[in-house]
Amino acid sequence: MKQSGIKKVVLAYSGGLDTSAIIPWLKENYVGCEVYAFVANVGQDPNELIDVEKKAKASGAVACRIVDLREEFVKDYVYPVLKTGALYEGTYYLGTSMARPIIAKAQVEYALEVGADALCHGATGKGNDQVRFETTYTALAPQLKVIAPWREWDLRSREALIDYLKQRNIPTTATIEKIYSRDENAWHISTEGGVLESTWNQANVDCWAWTVSPEDAPNEAELVTIGIEKGEVVSVNGKVLSPYNCVATLNQIGAKHGVGRVDIIENRLVGIKSRGCYETPGGTIMMTALRGLEQLVLDRDSFKWREQLGLEMAYVVYDGRWFAPYRRSLQASAEVLAEDMNGEVVVKLYKGNASAIQKKSLNSLYNEDFATFGEDDVYDHSHAGGFIRLFSLSSRIRALNSEANKK
Amino acid sequence: MKQSGIKKVVLAYSGGLDTSAIIPWLKENYVGCEVYAFVANVGQDPNELIDVEKKAKASGAVACRIVDLREEFVKDYVYPVLKTGALYEGTYYLGTSMARPIIAKAQVEYALEVGADALCHGATGKGNDQVRFETTYTALAPQLKVIAPWREWDLRSREALIDYLKQRNIPTTATIEKIYSRDENAWHISTEGGVLESTWNQANVDCWAWTVSPEDAPNEAELVTIGIEKGEVVSVNGKVLSPYNCVATLNQIGAKHGVGRVDIIENRLVGIKSRGCYETPGGTIMMTALRGLEQLVLDRDSFKWREQLGLEMAYVVYDGRWFAPYRRSLQASAEVLAEDMNGEVVVKLYKGNASAIQKKSLNSLYNEDFATFGEDDVYDHSHAGGFIRLFSLSSRIRALNSEANKK
Amino acid sequence: MKQSGIKKVVLAYSGGLDTSAIIPWLKENYVGCEVYAFVANVGQDPNELIDVEKKAKASGAVACRIVDLREEFVKDYVYPVLKTGALYEGTYYLGTSMARPIIAKAQVEYALEVGADALCHGATGKGNDQVRFETTYTALAPQLKVIAPWREWDLRSREALIDYLKQRNIPTTATIEKIYSRDENAWHISTEGGVLESTWNQANVDCWAWTVSPEDAPNEAELVTIGIEKGEVVSVNGKVLSPYNCVATLNQIGAKHGVGRVDIIENRLVGIKSRGCYETPGGTIMMTALRGLEQLVLDRDSFKWREQLGLEMAYVVYDGRWFAPYRRSLQASAEVLAEDMNGEVVVKLYKGNASAIQKKSLNSLYNEDFATFGEDDVYDHSHAGGFIRLFSLSSRIRALNSEANKK
Amino acid sequence: MKQSGIKKVVLAYSGGLDTSAIIPWLKENYVGCEVYAFVANVGQDPNELIDVEKKAKASGAVACRIVDLREEFVKDYVYPVLKTGALYEGTYYLGTSMARPIIAKAQVEYALEVGADALCHGATGKGNDQVRFETTYTALAPQLKVIAPWREWDLRSREALIDYLKQRNIPTTATIEKIYSRDENAWHISTEGGVLESTWNQANVDCWAWTVSPEDAPNEAELVTIGIEKGEVVSVNGKVLSPYNCVATLNQIGAKHGVGRVDIIENRLVGIKSRGCYETPGGTIMMTALRGLEQLVLDRDSFKWREQLGLEMAYVVYDGRWFAPYRRSLQASAEVLAEDMNGEVVVKLYKGNASAIQKKSLNSLYNEDFATFGEDDVYDHSHAGGFIRLFSLSSRIRALNSEANKK
Repeated sequence: MKQSGIKKVVLAYSGGLDTSAIIPWLKENYVGCEVYAFVANVGQDPNELIDVEKKAKASGAVACRIVDLREEFVKDYVYPVLKTGALYEGTYYLGTSMARPIIAKAQVEYALEVGADALCHGATGKGNDQVRFETTYTALAPQLKVIAPWREWDLRSREALIDYLKQRNIPTTATIEKIYSRDENAWHISTEGGVLESTWNQANVDCWAWTVSPEDAPNEAELVTIGIEKGEVVSVNGKVLSPYNCVATLNQIGAKHGVGRVDIIENRLVGIKSRGCYETPGGTIMMTALRGLEQLVLDRDSFKWREQLGLEMAYVVYDGRWFAPYRRSLQASAEVLAEDMNGEVVVKLYKGNASAIQKKSLNSLYNEDFATFGEDDVYDHSHAGGFIRLFSLSSRIRALNSEANKK
Repeated sequence: MKQSGIKKVVLAYSGGLDTSAIIPWLKENYVGCEVYAFVANVGQDPNELIDVEKKAKASGAVACRIVDLREEFVKDYVYPVLKTGALYEGTYYLGTSMARPIIAKAQVEYALEVGADALCHGATGKGNDQVRFETTYTALAPQLKVIAPWREWDLRSREALIDYLKQRNIPTTATIEKIYSRDENAWHISTEGGVLESTWNQANVDCWAWTVSPEDAPNEAELVTIGIEKGEVVSVNGKVLSPYNCVATLNQIGAKHGVGRVDIIENRLVGIKSRGCYETPGGTIMMTALRGLEQLVLDRDSFKWREQLGLEMAYVVYDGRWFAPYRRSLQASAEVLAEDMNGEVVVKLYKGNASAIQKKSLNSLYNEDFATFGEDDVYDHSHAGGFIRLFSLSSRIRALNSEANKK
Repeated sequence: MKQSGIKKVVLAYSGGLDTSAIIPWLKENYVGCEVYAFVANVGQDPNELIDVEKKAKASGAVACRIVDLREEFVKDYVYPVLKTGALYEGTYYLGTSMARPIIAKAQVEYALEVGADALCHGATGKGNDQVRFETTYTALAPQLKVIAPWREWDLRSREALIDYLKQRNIPTTATIEKIYSRDENAWHISTEGGVLESTWNQANVDCWAWTVSPEDAPNEAELVTIGIEKGEVVSVNGKVLSPYNCVATLNQIGAKHGVGRVDIIENRLVGIKSRGCYETPGGTIMMTALRGLEQLVLDRDSFKWREQLGLEMAYVVYDGRWFAPYRRSLQASAEVLAEDMNGEVVVKLYKGNASAIQKKSLNSLYNEDFATFGEDDVYDHSHAGGFIRLFSLSSRIRALNSEANKK
Repeated sequence: MKQSGIKKVVLAYSGGLDTSAIIPWLKENYVGCEVYAFVANVGQDPNELIDVEKKAKASGAVACRIVDLREEFVKDYVYPVLKTGALYEGTYYLGTSMARPIIAKAQVEYALEVGADALCHGATGKGNDQVRFETTYTALAPQLKVIAPWREWDLRSREALIDYLKQRNIPTTATIEKIYSRDENAWHISTEGGVLESTWNQANVDCWAWTVSPEDAPNEAELVTIGIEKGEVVSVNGKVLSPYNCVATLNQIGAKHGVGRVDIIENRLVGIKSRGCYETPGGTIMMTALRGLEQLVLDRDSFKWREQLGLEMAYVVYDGRWFAPYRRSLQASAEVLAEDMNGEVVVKLYKGNASAIQKKSLNSLYNEDFATFGEDDVYDHSHAGGFIRLFSLSSRIRALNSEANKK
């Protein structure tokens, strides 16, 4: 029993077993504190939001605030990262990584509003999310205490948690049997645990939650036209939609075609490797469209730099350093390159594949005339001779020199 | 008619229309020179090698040397690049780029052997290959003259070339109608021109030469087991094969499943954009396996560095700077990381998809015990608190400072 | 005599021998064209601007426009680059490189104003400046023809140029004897040629134009206080000055103390190496102050990224790619990091040395309390244990694994 | 009093106050353990090695091993890093960073030899050295326990430590008054604390231990000729010396001329900033010579890559990740570039300045003929036109396109 002096703590609450147990645990361990539940709607299963306030209060929270962050999440977190092309370790679409800072930021805002003196989250002690939550807390409200029950308590199993609630007569629908650990938002759903824990096991049908398997996808391909302005997806099949609705629409279409699955082992920030199945159907379509469009509009230097920015940004975002100058610096760089990213891309979806098969842009640097064999004003064959000569000049000098040294 | 003083020129000869016309053109324009045809077997269609010596001589060559470079190509050019994960502009497997330096190197060796004073290639004046050929010539034999007919002559169409040969009674099977320009070797086949010249056109069935379309691929997935040693593919389905035979085997398997197609617009080194369809079925399977295996064995720093090396290497190889210290420096760095790349990966092929679905390695850093919730010796939950605190410390100081400045 | 159709050409004119000869040469070789002389004042020796209009007209120009670009040069070209810390190949302050785009841009503006159809510069055919001029022309006015006399004419010596003018009765004060080639502006002066052409020769007293030698500098050190706002130098010794006047003032102070000399061999963009002595006294003091201040305000990630930006920017600027999206993208990234760059730095100047010896900033992340041994709220010694454990965790797993494999 | 089960612990012992107190502290707190003192000679003040064994035993150690690591330190730790040009945050020569892994490695070897079950070091809880020691321990002997007294005990002042020894009748010459904290080895000496703790204070004469101030240096410059083979300094003024003796000789020469001082604030790995004065006189001369020589021998791509390697290596070494694959990968890359680094450089030393004023190399790519105005076989002025055209081609297309879009 701690003499913590903490009076009000705002908990990032999901309605699930873990955060439900945290409420009484906080009150018992930080005696005298009131628990405010904060629920972020970042596009997870709407069923999880039903009765969530009631649940929070039944567990002992004095209040529960639900905030709809879906549009802000896509517009201000997902789209900026997408402009950089960031994929963590080449494959992961950063779905959970991008959600944590916006949740933590809104949680901090609620905490400041109610005059809380502490923040609490339910992320485990071996994962990345604890880092992402707490790094955001630190950047935005360093004066607030942070409580991370998973690093403190000894409730290390679902069974223990259920017992804990049962002993306190707090109702829960949770069952002991829960094989997979999942995280879901507008952008993706992740699945860890169970059969995935051996890297030699194949992922099975239960490891995938949103998408059909490529085998079960339609036998007919579907073409989707993606409209892009300044590097942001603004329309689907000619229909202008809000950012969240673009993602939601493409999630449905992509999921139907088995698009957007990755099954990977990744290096966590905390130094261990873990395996997860990630589904990002709409995101995969968007990424395909954007990377296709940039083939038209970015010059060689800009293209390489965009790749470099994506490589860096993936680590920054994965590590939860969203509110750092470094992240904003990378972002500003990517925004400049995104200015020319205007146009349309047709993406073909077929049994797990997403391919950009038609591309057009007013900012295109591709010109049919220049690329072909014929003569034109812009490119004269004779230019190439001089170009090659100077391009390889240091190599020539090196070779001549090395020859001369032999003598 | 040039008083060139050139007596012997070695031509990179393919048996096709362009290089066949170059032979008489050289003799007429560099009066008094003998033309030696050099044919590299890098795994292109074997039919192109049939009667190629006869063809060369019928066109006026005094000699023709055919060299089988297939194993050397895969072992010493493809595999090293594969270790870096290089994909030019994120997508292109560098099939043509890697073949040019080995062809040019062997051509130089032949030239030195026969005492030639010039080298000649049939690459066009708007492409990358002229740069790759000549950069290699420069690095290995700067004393030799270089002749690039496409930058000199006025034979700018197939019609003109056919007429040119006809006037000289040189037999050719070439026809005026040839829509697509192709390049083929053990690693890939590329297709440019025709319908592809508009980026808003879809590639059609004629744009693909090796692979079936995903729609026409088998309805049953196929699993292939790839054995890897020090970052090199050494076996397929348990059968140890030479590097070339690994690729050849996987090309067949991949092509059947519609794997390895990309349809892209790329930035050429010479400053223009061009569109091409590339097929790299075996390469795509190998890349999938290697990138899957590295998820197990590379730590976070090494992984990011491998990505960086791949990014750099793609440009170096694309630009033909194979024999430069920079390329060797990148290579040496990648070789160190490849030392731990030992193991097996099962790749699932299904209608255009290739996914690494099972992975194992004695060098794996993944450990089932560490990744799960339970306690262990290696990872203590309490470590994370200190880690996060220091990881976000500068952010904390910055936030506190910014707060203090407001006062 | 060319049927060029060129009617009006705007020449980047300096009043020197080369560009004076270009005026009649243009009129004779592009018959019927009028030559408009454009003179940029970027801070070179004011004596060069005296009578420059008269000179231009005496050489045959129909008009001469002199534009004062000094403040714009420092504010919009020098300061942005300085924020990135760019030093080409680690040492060169990019004095000439930054001046070319602003000169070429203003020249283009003049050309558009007078309705010219061509642009001309006097840069030689082996140097970087031809690339910088023409790359700017291309980016801003691709429709205008470019004339580069040094790549066309056969006037390859000072003697030939003087004769050429003499034959045309055009007065010149130029003499045959001119050992060194120089370029001067507000930021620096460069010296090439003469004794410097052998890399084993020491630079002699004539190789330095602005600065005294460290040996001849005062025996007393001088302290200068540099005021910095958002990464830009705004005051010297407490006196607020315009950007140009900051540089000019610091040039005087620095030159007196022998500060800002570098004697280097560099890789030109065109593939050859050249040697030059560069003097950047004010720039060196500014760089010293800025790099000192950033030690206080940039966190570790930001610091490394600033170094990366400087490395990239050096090449972009050196190569004259000023008006490319890539340059603007790098710039935008650096501007974000510069937001915190506010404070004061005292730089000590003594016989060639410039050292930042006192630094302060409201944005400082340095905190005396945290850095010392005592206890504080922000840093608890116990945090370090967990940090180290996770920081080295993959190394631990790797070592344990390698141990296990041996068994 | 801990039931640690530890029987033998090897302590990195210096003979100073801290590690002398650690010996009895270990025996009291890890009851039953024997303490083995390990002393590394990495070139620190030889006086510190006098009687060090006696001191260790007087403090209660059962044994004391002294190992001379000076040549190995310079040859295998300093020289490899020097090839990359690594300077942490642009200025710090990594003197302490490079010494920690070799000390820890030799300590581990001693521990394995005597069958110890634990390792101990005297680095404080807010510094980098604890990380460097323990990261090395982890990589080389993960099975051994690590004891870091500074993170455990409550002896937080010199006074407390002296009292602690006094109470145990252990003789010490240490006095309470010790303003500065120092670390010394063959490569450098660092000074922290005291007046340096405020960044607005100037370093005073006591902050510098090896070098005279520039003001007190000789009024005559001194030239030193540095001989270099494969990127390693092998001779000084024509005299071939071992690596350690090269450094030692140059330290003496440099110190006399006030060369090699830096006074910086740096970002520690643990998230705080600290200020230090570092003296690296010989290292500064070597770095100057190497960076001068590379101006002659590295082509542009290689030069930029070497800068990149230096940037990366600085962080890896600073962070103590010496025995990681990533460090070896960077190293291998740098070794390739160092192959051409052969030649001589004359470095001029004068009142704090070190400048490379003469350079020569058989591998030089600089050629007096190519760099000057005259004609030659290798560079034809006409090449430049084509080069520029293609170099700026994407910029031209972009500009034309943007013009066309306006219409």
